[in-house]
Amino acid sequence: MQSLQNITFLSDFGMGGGYVAACEATMVRLCPQARVFHISHEVPVGDVAAASLVLSRVTPLYPESVHLAVVDPGVGTDRHPLVIRTDRGDLLVGPDNGLLVDAALVLGGPVGVWALDIARVRELAGLPREGISSTFHGRDLFAPASALLSSGADPRSLGTLLDPVGLVRIAPTPSTLMEGGASAPVVEIDRFGNVGLGVKFEAIPAGGDPSRATFLVEVVGEGAPEWMARMVNTYGELTAGELGLIRDSWGHASLALNGASAAELLGVRRGDMVALTQVQT
Amino acid sequence: MQSLQNITFLSDFGMGGGYVAACEATMVRLCPQARVFHISHEVPVGDVAAASLVLSRVTPLYPESVHLAVVDPGVGTDRHPLVIRTDRGDLLVGPDNGLLVDAALVLGGPVGVWALDIARVRELAGLPREGISSTFHGRDLFAPASALLSSGADPRSLGTLLDPVGLVRIAPTPSTLMEGGASAPVVEIDRFGNVGLGVKFEAIPAGGDPSRATFLVEVVGEGAPEWMARMVNTYGELTAGELGLIRDSWGHASLALNGASAAELLGVRRGDMVALTQVQT
Amino acid sequence: MQSLQNITFLSDFGMGGGYVAACEATMVRLCPQARVFHISHEVPVGDVAAASLVLSRVTPLYPESVHLAVVDPGVGTDRHPLVIRTDRGDLLVGPDNGLLVDAALVLGGPVGVWALDIARVRELAGLPREGISSTFHGRDLFAPASALLSSGADPRSLGTLLDPVGLVRIAPTPSTLMEGGASAPVVEIDRFGNVGLGVKFEAIPAGGDPSRATFLVEVVGEGAPEWMARMVNTYGELTAGELGLIRDSWGHASLALNGASAAELLGVRRGDMVALTQVQT
Repeated sequence: MQSLQNITFLSDFGMGGGYVAACEATMVRLCPQARVFHISHEVPVGDVAAASLVLSRVTPLYPESVHLAVVDPGVGTDRHPLVIRTDRGDLLVGPDNGLLVDAALVLGGPVGVWALDIARVRELAGLPREGISSTFHGRDLFAPASALLSSGADPRSLGTLLDPVGLVRIAPTPSTLMEGGASAPVVEIDRFGNVGLGVKFEAIPAGGDPSRATFLVEVVGEGAPEWMARMVNTYGELTAGELGLIRDSWGHASLALNGASAAELLGVRRGDMVALTQVQT
Repeated sequence: MQSLQNITFLSDFGMGGGYVAACEATMVRLCPQARVFHISHEVPVGDVAAASLVLSRVTPLYPESVHLAVVDPGVGTDRHPLVIRTDRGDLLVGPDNGLLVDAALVLGGPVGVWALDIARVRELAGLPREGISSTFHGRDLFAPASALLSSGADPRSLGTLLDPVGLVRIAPTPSTLMEGGASAPVVEIDRFGNVGLGVKFEAIPAGGDPSRATFLVEVVGEGAPEWMARMVNTYGELTAGELGLIRDSWGHASLALNGASAAELLGVRRGDMVALTQVQT
Repeated sequence: MQSLQNITFLSDFGMGGGYVAACEATMVRLCPQARVFHISHEVPVGDVAAASLVLSRVTPLYPESVHLAVVDPGVGTDRHPLVIRTDRGDLLVGPDNGLLVDAALVLGGPVGVWALDIARVRELAGLPREGISSTFHGRDLFAPASALLSSGADPRSLGTLLDPVGLVRIAPTPSTLMEGGASAPVVEIDRFGNVGLGVKFEAIPAGGDPSRATFLVEVVGEGAPEWMARMVNTYGELTAGELGLIRDSWGHASLALNGASAAELLGVRRGDMVALTQVQT
């Protein structure tokens, strides 16, 4: 097998303790020539959908790599530990809870899926079979598997072939498009307070002159006040306190303020539904 | 001396300013071939015991390395700046305040301890003797020393031999085991809200059928309500809101919820004492 | 051109999403031999002055590098995207909003300034001309340019020569020195709660016996209580709760407590003015 020197690593472990380092140390010890790139360890705790979104956005930008991703509320239960080979040549490693599927799709689709055999992985890695935790498969299974794969191990040697059809998938909250508007879930709130919606920007009907399109913004089921948002191309076009509807960095529709947090203004959280209705202009 | 290409780095500096980068830059400039691995820079501010715990957990997982650790409330005072050589072949660099001792022990024990001579380190590193701060020995002393050691410098050339017996040690808050229970300090609260206790999971008397063991949980001296915790193997076995007692990733007893923060539920902080008493089942 | 293998990277993106990874991935893909060092991605959101301060402090400590810095509230507007070559041989890459100027000065001063041509950068990088966002020039322009420069591309091939005189500069809030005192803005609050002031420590008139100098501390325009601060060399000299005036790690005057947050005690934020008046001793 071809070796993949680069290992990307995403988790919800946070940087305050030793979880990230324990995984990195394990990989560096088992595969000294590996280069580990930390995508993020600050995705919302246990939020597989949020992590999946980040993973599917950035993995295509890396060269062919082993992509280790661990957001794993079911650690220790009978959920499968996976390796997915993609058509582009990447290898995705992580739990079978939906985390890896979208990334696999944007990397060309899965061309092989295996359930990792923990005993086999640890034997090949030269690790003791005892002492496997039921709370930290990142260190005890996924990191060793990633190191082996980075060293050129064949996924077939690490586990059992699975049918991709059986993989757990995350059911996305659907967005609704209608004449002159859209309704979509909040899928991301970034550090700037931008409110990323689960709908492509291009899909939103702008009617009339898009350069003057204005939308009524309602947070569904909140009984909260409504806002007006103006469609703009850059944050800089917005005046202080003016809400904008903008094509975000990933092609999604996003609500933003210039230099302040739209999420705070709207009082929204990931998962809330937002309705946009174009106002006659 | 053998060179150690890998330098691990732990501190309480946080990532918001330039402290971490200043140290890394200094090491990369002095030792271009070094690979720096960031264990954590988010350990609780000034909390030597918390940092020591992380350091002793993860350093054994790395290959033989220079381990730079700076949690140093006494910076600039007369506490010794240390290099400790361990039996495994690692070199630990940091202040003599208890931070390095537990890591040295798990790395085979100290086989040599030196007090760094700041003038000698800076001369060997080609740095000016003036301009040494009394607030940032990470950049001005420990990082240069780590770079020199990574390049193969002999610790004996950087300072004066010390007797390991004189090293500052952290007195751990003792845990107490009794018939059917235990009392132990909270030693860690992780990003998931898991409450790590300062007692080995195996040490807790589970009596009767361990698979049905249930414990009364009291936060000592709080006059706060009590909780019941069920002994489980995985987070996934817990129902919503049910408190579990679980063997954590480091072999310690830990209180956890499934998908929520046990620390928040219990209202505990690092250092609080928790009493566990097995309930008749 | 000489290649610069090291790329440093500073932004206000935070680590919670995919922004940092998207830039890093782009650089690693385009320049596989590059080594990326993360200075900080947690500088205050949109705070060009705070980011500039960190950048100018740490870039001189790195070897000659490409320094990528993205704090860019004006992304997508007509602010210039820049490359600055410094006399020391570094290349600074980022927006023309004042972020890079101070770093350029401490790196020997600018010896060449170019406005990046986004079409040319993307063509040279083998990236499509379409699909350029107006919200994320870090990924779409600055990271590709940094990768090209790290690979040895001549800045002249990436854009148009600019007159350094026209660069946007940040007007610093001035500090005032007077007989027995000083007035200066808060320029930094670090993780320890130290309050960094925009005035060199040496500039503060300590009068009489500096080892006994004591200052009255007022937060200007607050009507808040006043404090006394004692001039000390180390945090360790301060008793519990005692405010100190100390030479910080960057040579600035700083207000600090021993083991607690001076910023919290004083209730100050970046930009507040603080007046120091020496008290007769």
